[in-house]
Amino acid sequence: MSDARLAVAIEPERDEHLVAAVEEAGGRIVGLEEARVLVWIGMPTGFPELPDTIEWVALKTAGIEGFVDAGVIDDKRVWTNASGFYAENVAEHALALLLAGLRQINTSVVRHWDKEPIDTAVRSLHGSTVAIIGAGGIAASLIPRLNASGARVIAVNRSGRPVDGAAVTLPSSQTDEVWAQTDHVVLAAPATAETQHLINERTLAALPSHAWVVNVARGPLVDQSALVAALHSGQIAGAALDVTDPEPPAHDDPLWSLPNVIITPHIANPSSGLTRTMAPFLAENVRRYLAGDEMLSVVTPGSAY
Amino acid sequence: MSDARLAVAIEPERDEHLVAAVEEAGGRIVGLEEARVLVWIGMPTGFPELPDTIEWVALKTAGIEGFVDAGVIDDKRVWTNASGFYAENVAEHALALLLAGLRQINTSVVRHWDKEPIDTAVRSLHGSTVAIIGAGGIAASLIPRLNASGARVIAVNRSGRPVDGAAVTLPSSQTDEVWAQTDHVVLAAPATAETQHLINERTLAALPSHAWVVNVARGPLVDQSALVAALHSGQIAGAALDVTDPEPPAHDDPLWSLPNVIITPHIANPSSGLTRTMAPFLAENVRRYLAGDEMLSVVTPGSAY
Repeated sequence: MSDARLAVAIEPERDEHLVAAVEEAGGRIVGLEEARVLVWIGMPTGFPELPDTIEWVALKTAGIEGFVDAGVIDDKRVWTNASGFYAENVAEHALALLLAGLRQINTSVVRHWDKEPIDTAVRSLHGSTVAIIGAGGIAASLIPRLNASGARVIAVNRSGRPVDGAAVTLPSSQTDEVWAQTDHVVLAAPATAETQHLINERTLAALPSHAWVVNVARGPLVDQSALVAALHSGQIAGAALDVTDPEPPAHDDPLWSLPNVIITPHIANPSSGLTRTMAPFLAENVRRYLAGDEMLSVVTPGSAY
Repeated sequence: MSDARLAVAIEPERDEHLVAAVEEAGGRIVGLEEARVLVWIGMPTGFPELPDTIEWVALKTAGIEGFVDAGVIDDKRVWTNASGFYAENVAEHALALLLAGLRQINTSVVRHWDKEPIDTAVRSLHGSTVAIIGAGGIAASLIPRLNASGARVIAVNRSGRPVDGAAVTLPSSQTDEVWAQTDHVVLAAPATAETQHLINERTLAALPSHAWVVNVARGPLVDQSALVAALHSGQIAGAALDVTDPEPPAHDDPLWSLPNVIITPHIANPSSGLTRTMAPFLAENVRRYLAGDEMLSVVTPGSAY
């Protein structure tokens, strides 16, 4: 007797949030050899040899360049990533980083009540312009937050198709027009050949001196030595980074000693809460798979997102 | 020949932003002896003996308990403070403090990429409930920011009259109902006998253990030794304070060494930008005074706000 429920393997370890999501959506948990679907919540290292019977692989991260580099992504089945699942978390963290920088929370934490330099360095988000480079799911969550804070948004996306809530949307081919028009920059684009070192000596020079650069995307979007130079010289006001290149920065990296830098350890979307956040999206994709509907976050073949 | 323009003294020092505001609104700058209006941008100490010819005194701060305590406020003329003028600045800072705490920016700044404890301590503002105690002008600016961040607001004001954007409004007589219903608390009430030590051993015990307490109002609203005890024992998750009692805290105050505390040096509304922010409000009040209209932020006789 066959079981009509979708056979799903969750590897390399059991996770209660995802088990519950799969079962609620009409699946059952099985081993890899029996499965039609693999939910892989481990690293690229250790990714298993896939039986041909696996029709769909669900990955738990939004950026999957590690899996692409490891050569595990093939064209024999559907692959989904978690693009958009964690957008609200990451948007909230981007806002926290930007406000912490503008409001001098980092300097306040280390320079106890050294009032005058802190007081004069405080800047307001309200009345400012913020450019979001890579305006997808994170931007969709971030823009209403920025607008409610009295900031105007310039969105940059691939197509230039107007983004809800943005005052201006530009296609990525016109990214260079952004730097002189904005007060601050939030990086939310995937790591690709085109976005590699998007923030570099030239673009840093085009930003205003009061600019904060926030990176919640991927470290390689920033030429880190150019950033250090710009922060050291005061060419820009500060950088707030949840991602770096490499991660973590070396113990003696000058980033650690610059006063106008905030580094959080890649926790915009905390690992410890990942599967809980992912669970309802996985359930939705199981339902769609069973119904034959278009799934969420299908990986574009040949791309890393 | 008399000059029809309103004679305004700005003391104890000239300020270009305020001079421009007064002149633009139909006033002229004179010395104290000639003036009908005094704009006092100094401290309570040094406040001058007022000639009877002064009809209106404009103070530059929202909280004026220092002037009340110094006995300079009389009932011979109109007094205005700056209540509401800086609300947007303070609301922005309150949001920055709350997000910095929830997002572990303070621990990240001092514990370089100590990932695991930071990752597991990160909390989200979205999906949480935030109580604002003293829901006036600051709350009016803060509530849309919190709502856009996916948080639900409980507002507490004197009358209990529903506050726009709050899910629930309670009168201050029912403040004690708030603690167990909220995730986080923002203090935005004036310093009065009723608000003295509003956060104390009892109220801290009623808050959930994941609560952050944000104070952008006045230090005396918090029983600081009770707060230190609650932070030390983990009874609440953290405190983010722009104001303390005294200011600054003593060099050896335990607040400085607790990892779950953020202290900014009373810069929610930076002194260095005060008169620039105040200028358009002063201009508006000069216009209203000349027109005989109701003025902004008239001090209630016998109160400190």
